[in-house]
Amino acid sequence: MWEKVYQKIDELYDKMVEDRRYLHQHPELSFKEKETSKYIRQRYDELGIPYKSNIGGYGIVARIDGGKPGKTVALRADFDALPIHEENDVPYKSKVDGVMHACGHDGHTATLLGVAEAVNSYKDELEGTMVFIHQPAEEYAPGGAKPMIEDGALEGVDAVFGTHLWANTELNVIETTRGPFMAGTDRFEIVFKGKGGHGAMPHQTKDPVVMAGQAIVELQQLVSRRIDPLLPAVLTIGVVEAGEAFNVIPDTATLKGTVRFLDIPVQDQIIEEMHKVLKGIAVSYGAEYELDYFKGYPPVVNHDEETGYYLNEGSEIPGVKEAREIPPVMGGEDFAYYLEERPGSFFFTGAQIEGHEYPHHHPKFDIDERALPTAAKALLHGYKKYQAK
Amino acid sequence: MWEKVYQKIDELYDKMVEDRRYLHQHPELSFKEKETSKYIRQRYDELGIPYKSNIGGYGIVARIDGGKPGKTVALRADFDALPIHEENDVPYKSKVDGVMHACGHDGHTATLLGVAEAVNSYKDELEGTMVFIHQPAEEYAPGGAKPMIEDGALEGVDAVFGTHLWANTELNVIETTRGPFMAGTDRFEIVFKGKGGHGAMPHQTKDPVVMAGQAIVELQQLVSRRIDPLLPAVLTIGVVEAGEAFNVIPDTATLKGTVRFLDIPVQDQIIEEMHKVLKGIAVSYGAEYELDYFKGYPPVVNHDEETGYYLNEGSEIPGVKEAREIPPVMGGEDFAYYLEERPGSFFFTGAQIEGHEYPHHHPKFDIDERALPTAAKALLHGYKKYQAK
Amino acid sequence: MWEKVYQKIDELYDKMVEDRRYLHQHPELSFKEKETSKYIRQRYDELGIPYKSNIGGYGIVARIDGGKPGKTVALRADFDALPIHEENDVPYKSKVDGVMHACGHDGHTATLLGVAEAVNSYKDELEGTMVFIHQPAEEYAPGGAKPMIEDGALEGVDAVFGTHLWANTELNVIETTRGPFMAGTDRFEIVFKGKGGHGAMPHQTKDPVVMAGQAIVELQQLVSRRIDPLLPAVLTIGVVEAGEAFNVIPDTATLKGTVRFLDIPVQDQIIEEMHKVLKGIAVSYGAEYELDYFKGYPPVVNHDEETGYYLNEGSEIPGVKEAREIPPVMGGEDFAYYLEERPGSFFFTGAQIEGHEYPHHHPKFDIDERALPTAAKALLHGYKKYQAK
Amino acid sequence: MWEKVYQKIDELYDKMVEDRRYLHQHPELSFKEKETSKYIRQRYDELGIPYKSNIGGYGIVARIDGGKPGKTVALRADFDALPIHEENDVPYKSKVDGVMHACGHDGHTATLLGVAEAVNSYKDELEGTMVFIHQPAEEYAPGGAKPMIEDGALEGVDAVFGTHLWANTELNVIETTRGPFMAGTDRFEIVFKGKGGHGAMPHQTKDPVVMAGQAIVELQQLVSRRIDPLLPAVLTIGVVEAGEAFNVIPDTATLKGTVRFLDIPVQDQIIEEMHKVLKGIAVSYGAEYELDYFKGYPPVVNHDEETGYYLNEGSEIPGVKEAREIPPVMGGEDFAYYLEERPGSFFFTGAQIEGHEYPHHHPKFDIDERALPTAAKALLHGYKKYQAK
Repeated sequence: MWEKVYQKIDELYDKMVEDRRYLHQHPELSFKEKETSKYIRQRYDELGIPYKSNIGGYGIVARIDGGKPGKTVALRADFDALPIHEENDVPYKSKVDGVMHACGHDGHTATLLGVAEAVNSYKDELEGTMVFIHQPAEEYAPGGAKPMIEDGALEGVDAVFGTHLWANTELNVIETTRGPFMAGTDRFEIVFKGKGGHGAMPHQTKDPVVMAGQAIVELQQLVSRRIDPLLPAVLTIGVVEAGEAFNVIPDTATLKGTVRFLDIPVQDQIIEEMHKVLKGIAVSYGAEYELDYFKGYPPVVNHDEETGYYLNEGSEIPGVKEAREIPPVMGGEDFAYYLEERPGSFFFTGAQIEGHEYPHHHPKFDIDERALPTAAKALLHGYKKYQAK
Repeated sequence: MWEKVYQKIDELYDKMVEDRRYLHQHPELSFKEKETSKYIRQRYDELGIPYKSNIGGYGIVARIDGGKPGKTVALRADFDALPIHEENDVPYKSKVDGVMHACGHDGHTATLLGVAEAVNSYKDELEGTMVFIHQPAEEYAPGGAKPMIEDGALEGVDAVFGTHLWANTELNVIETTRGPFMAGTDRFEIVFKGKGGHGAMPHQTKDPVVMAGQAIVELQQLVSRRIDPLLPAVLTIGVVEAGEAFNVIPDTATLKGTVRFLDIPVQDQIIEEMHKVLKGIAVSYGAEYELDYFKGYPPVVNHDEETGYYLNEGSEIPGVKEAREIPPVMGGEDFAYYLEERPGSFFFTGAQIEGHEYPHHHPKFDIDERALPTAAKALLHGYKKYQAK
Repeated sequence: MWEKVYQKIDELYDKMVEDRRYLHQHPELSFKEKETSKYIRQRYDELGIPYKSNIGGYGIVARIDGGKPGKTVALRADFDALPIHEENDVPYKSKVDGVMHACGHDGHTATLLGVAEAVNSYKDELEGTMVFIHQPAEEYAPGGAKPMIEDGALEGVDAVFGTHLWANTELNVIETTRGPFMAGTDRFEIVFKGKGGHGAMPHQTKDPVVMAGQAIVELQQLVSRRIDPLLPAVLTIGVVEAGEAFNVIPDTATLKGTVRFLDIPVQDQIIEEMHKVLKGIAVSYGAEYELDYFKGYPPVVNHDEETGYYLNEGSEIPGVKEAREIPPVMGGEDFAYYLEERPGSFFFTGAQIEGHEYPHHHPKFDIDERALPTAAKALLHGYKKYQAK
Repeated sequence: MWEKVYQKIDELYDKMVEDRRYLHQHPELSFKEKETSKYIRQRYDELGIPYKSNIGGYGIVARIDGGKPGKTVALRADFDALPIHEENDVPYKSKVDGVMHACGHDGHTATLLGVAEAVNSYKDELEGTMVFIHQPAEEYAPGGAKPMIEDGALEGVDAVFGTHLWANTELNVIETTRGPFMAGTDRFEIVFKGKGGHGAMPHQTKDPVVMAGQAIVELQQLVSRRIDPLLPAVLTIGVVEAGEAFNVIPDTATLKGTVRFLDIPVQDQIIEEMHKVLKGIAVSYGAEYELDYFKGYPPVVNHDEETGYYLNEGSEIPGVKEAREIPPVMGGEDFAYYLEERPGSFFFTGAQIEGHEYPHHHPKFDIDERALPTAAKALLHGYKKYQAK
């Protein structure tokens, strides 16, 4: 059966491109993907595949029950766009000023629709049940995955697979790694509350600028001294805001930053150590601090066996010339939540356009559409292997 | 003669108050004191005292040649106001929204006009020549003193005296000190030029936020380690500006601050050491820095002998119950420039209003007008002593 | 054949224990293992196995040429002891005051002698050539591995395997990992050369104590800011030496420390960044610094395929109930040098004594001798698999 | 009478030199000045001047009751030596290896004996009572002044004067200043108690080396940020002791240093702020700190009026060509304790040897003995003025 499905996918190439380009021209921001959701529903209606909508927001969960018994395995695609103004000069350029599919989610959706149509043609021969999770709001924490799961998207599901079209990786290559694959990505804001005053009389103040300087320097020691050196972690301060006049010591100073980590226990350890460092500084100056720490997506932790399907046997996938193990990536993904609930794996599908290489989230980002059928077959690979388990 | 002059000053009290209140109601910002200058000229016209105008801007230099031979001694009053919206509820409240005589320069001018009128009445008996320097733009560096001097305000002048009505000091007290009395006040701006990038990949950047933190901490060592502990100095950073997004390492970080010092050699020493510290940080990160250092007013360094007139014999001044030696003040004054050129002294005349005590530059700042005749007589004290020298 | 060899190893258990205990009672320090070397040579003489001695010092290389063609594979055991005074109360306690086999090298040697005797009994059936590397001076950089290799120990060798009896791991378990398994371990010494003076007059000095403080803080940023967060690294300062009198600023301050890393390029990167940081501090104080950086053992980087023999097929080894993949260990080993030259793998063999759990290098360190035959069979596993390659 | 006394002093020059040289050859360390004390007592016995001995240790208090009524005024000289090996090649070189009058206390004693003898000759004409305080142990805190005062040395005394022969000031010059003249000099020891461990596993430790680095840097902010910039203060760390092995993180780190200040309130402020900074660091690392702070001599705070005798009328002293006001000196003196109890003044008497200029406490330190009669007359100046008060 799978050979026929693969062939069907190849035949659906133009349709997948058409879907992708339509979505690319009509991007919608996270949590506002009303029309995108409607478009996907219409496509399932056309295909006659049953689905539930409004799952955790604009989420859609479709399913194909195979003619043969087997496991229930979900495949996921996200469908939100970004607040970026497209600078590509292409016929399918975004029609919405300042909003752009600059991360390939249009391609993810088109791929999953292609999979659904191809599999649906041979559903009698299918072992098990294939679930299609179309997820909104991946780009903006707290994201769309969590509410979809809470709303039942994984009910009855035994395993879950997902892919990201990856503009930095050449066509026909898939990449992943066992264990932590993408980082936990948190956000924090620190405010030191000192006591301002005249710049010439520092002894009458509690100088929050010096506290901020101290904190910038000392917080770097968390990673180098307090976290297991084998567990990657990053703490970056991207923004410092303090004072308005060169000769006035302000009352407060604000630091904003991000924390990245691959191993879940590192997160709470960093939060605890941040509090210790900041409290220490506050004590030292007789001042106060506030730490607002927003936990973002957890790390994407790939399951060993399921990721092994791709690393060890990925070259069985038609069109895939290499399945490559890569070091983890410090960016984040809310696919993490699915993998906290179910076995599965997340991987990259190479979609680099030779000679037009822009990173994700760049106004000139684009993908080579020939990656769509490869991504489709690669998603099916996880399903197929899982049935044989 | 002086007794008669003192009495005349007392008689002129109402007129001095009138002048002061008129000016208070019609404040003008530094370098824009067109009408104030005109008002002063009219008063000298009324008094029949000769003057030169447009000295270094809106500056005015009047003079009374005494009937007897003697030294030429200048008395100075500044006349600009501040960009502050008055919050006092008084009949003579500022009529200009957002502009206010919140530092007492209205009183300085009224005082000096009173002195001129009183002395003029007895000019035949006067030994020497009395010069009246009405100076604009004290509040805003580079100030009005420097251009007035460059334009000849001190030509032929042997010594110079000035006073500041001081809202923190009780009536009938004068305060000053030998040597450094008010601070040199400089401004600086530091820019670290690193290399920005993704907050999750600090190793690919040269993080200017960390450089800024390092600099904030390390610059504090200038004062504590590199400047003679007997020579007061302050280095304050009032403003930090870095970054826009919490998860992006910016390209640059900016620090703005002020340096204060009482001893002139400290200034160049601090500049030299700042460059060393900042260069060290830049070297350490393979990055670059810029230091724009703007020298403001130098310290007001009182001359020993002339200041001795006030500290040792100040109680001879009618109405002065105490002449108090105080520690230097870390604020600045462009009277400093006169004292770089001529012997003389600058002192505070107490003008505190009991029960309405607001600092200089406060929207509710006000002075007790009874301080005006005291200030007038105290200014004359320096003149008188200098003739006897 | 291998079944017979395994059985022979079991039969040799008492002899292995005897060898181990003899060596344990007669420990010798690194580079001074004259008698140990002699003992090993005598044992090979008894067995009639040919060897070369004085290889890179006290090193010995024995070999058994099998009766059948095949690869040449080396097995390595180190034989030096440590300057530690044994505190165990055992019949085989060290007879040398202050010297002790506190790291299990006595067991390594006994194991390898057991392997040699067992294999020698069936050498006609053996495919390939088995080489036995008995190495001195593992405990003290620059170590014994490097000179043995330079003296030809690996000539004609196709692959190399080694094990460490591991007191923290339970019996019958082997542990290793693909790629970096043990850390590169370097040593450094930093001297800041300032200018001393009276503690009350810091401005006349260049205070090396403050430079040292600055360096301690700033060097921590290397790991957190300048090294790829995915590449583990540690920079620790273990010793600070500065000054003799509380009220005198000294001329110099000294820091001594260690650097650990798993990925070879990290080493030169850290050295380069250390120079930048230290130069920056020196520039900042108009002072000088010296950095003496001693490169120690490189990381032990296990080869993928050979390590796969253990991780994937380790349970084929008689007596091994689990082959466990563990995170790398930040300690060092000069087995690293063999793996820089030849394919191979290094692994731990569990030797924990229940209820007597002391870390390596502890005066009460001991191993469960039942680990010796397991280690012997596990060493042979690599040889065996390599022949089948 | 005073003219006769001055002349007598000149006549006693050789005797003063003889006393000084005898003492120089027989130096004794602080608190061990048994023979020196005996020598002084013998001299008073010869002169027939009554005294009390064993005052607060080896202290001696002699007195001359004048024939005329008047105030009781004390003059003080210290008599201990230093643990320094003399390197001068002079006939009167120290006969005690490793002990030397390297601070001029031999001269102080000889001067005061000269004063006593000269005044004694004319005691009938003397107004008031002259008290001679010969004090041990000035060089070593807690010093000899405090116990002498506690033992009654100042009983009945109205005022007190003292001088220090000063090798950095030319002959015939006296120097002092009103208010704080010499610094308060304290000693401290900080211990950070962290948790040691392997240098490769910092996350399992609480690294006291990093705490120490942090403290060195942050303590510098006390002076620059938390103390009034007009109040001189120094905090110097002279000693850092941490760790023994380059690759082991120690349990503790120790910092030893000194604090200097001129204004008494600064002392407690610094102690309070040190605790804040150190507690902050301890909090930040979940560790502990100890601060042992030993208050040494307080600042020598000269009384205004009595110091005015010297600054304003010092040129009346025969042989004094200049009375110079100098900035305070950051060294300490336990004369401070007398001035806490009684009005008085402490001043320097120039004793520089041209062409042989070594600082106090140097093995080649020496004084120009011609300073002795000048110092004697200068001491009498305070007495004389005080009677006229």
